[in-house]
Amino acid sequence: MLTRIDHVGVACRDLAAKIAFYESTFGLAVASIEVNEAQGVREAMLHVAAGPAGASYVQLLEPLGPDTPVGRFLARRGEGVHHVGYGVADITAALAAIAATGVRLIDQRPRHGSMGASIAFLHPADIGGVLTELVQAPESSHHLGH
Amino acid sequence: MLTRIDHVGVACRDLAAKIAFYESTFGLAVASIEVNEAQGVREAMLHVAAGPAGASYVQLLEPLGPDTPVGRFLARRGEGVHHVGYGVADITAALAAIAATGVRLIDQRPRHGSMGASIAFLHPADIGGVLTELVQAPESSHHLGH
Repeated sequence: MLTRIDHVGVACRDLAAKIAFYESTFGLAVASIEVNEAQGVREAMLHVAAGPAGASYVQLLEPLGPDTPVGRFLARRGEGVHHVGYGVADITAALAAIAATGVRLIDQRPRHGSMGASIAFLHPADIGGVLTELVQAPESSHHLGH
Repeated sequence: MLTRIDHVGVACRDLAAKIAFYESTFGLAVASIEVNEAQGVREAMLHVAAGPAGASYVQLLEPLGPDTPVGRFLARRGEGVHHVGYGVADITAALAAIAATGVRLIDQRPRHGSMGASIAFLHPADIGGVLTELVQAPESSHHLGH
């Protein structure tokens, strides 16, 4: 069902500084910077590698304010890994199969994620404390490979 | 420098139960189960995908006792993401380049990791709260796809 580690989502306080850090320390390159008002974040996708099933990224997340999911995460836990996103070929089918096992879905149906992807979050309490995201890349990304 | 997301390391209290969960919920398959006495863990590598630069895994980590790094992590934070491991082609060169940027190395030189890899940890306080591991896969893994 899971085709790749799509991204590791990292909560940070200063997106520009963290982008510069990952560029200069690890040689990663920015693939996109977006604001997602619905999720309350400004985010950057830094390209790590592309495999047959799509690309992998470090996703840096800066909250748009303290009263957002990432803002509350930073207040509670500090900077660090916020979630893990896995690639799936068919997110609707994957959500149905996972829900059937008893894992609670945060998103009952897919919504808009980074770079045109369809995404949905699963409840971390049902997955050993790991906030887990499913990511179906847009059709074109399979060909572009980013 | 970073060639792939090699693995996401997840701290858990019951390795067998968590393996069964990832198998049945997400369809992942166990690639290896090892005890690493030096790191104080019993661990499983669950295969997610293989790209041109090597494979990606979910690494499940159960501490051998409370007075181990993962045991202390569980007591402090509970179950969840413990670290992120990135693939590199030459870990000795990567460590030298990263140290030159001022990031502190937990391991000054590579040591033995899962499945015959050479690994080294970098200090999370210098990487925005993310315990970061470099992984150089053994030569054969490029051909086996594991």
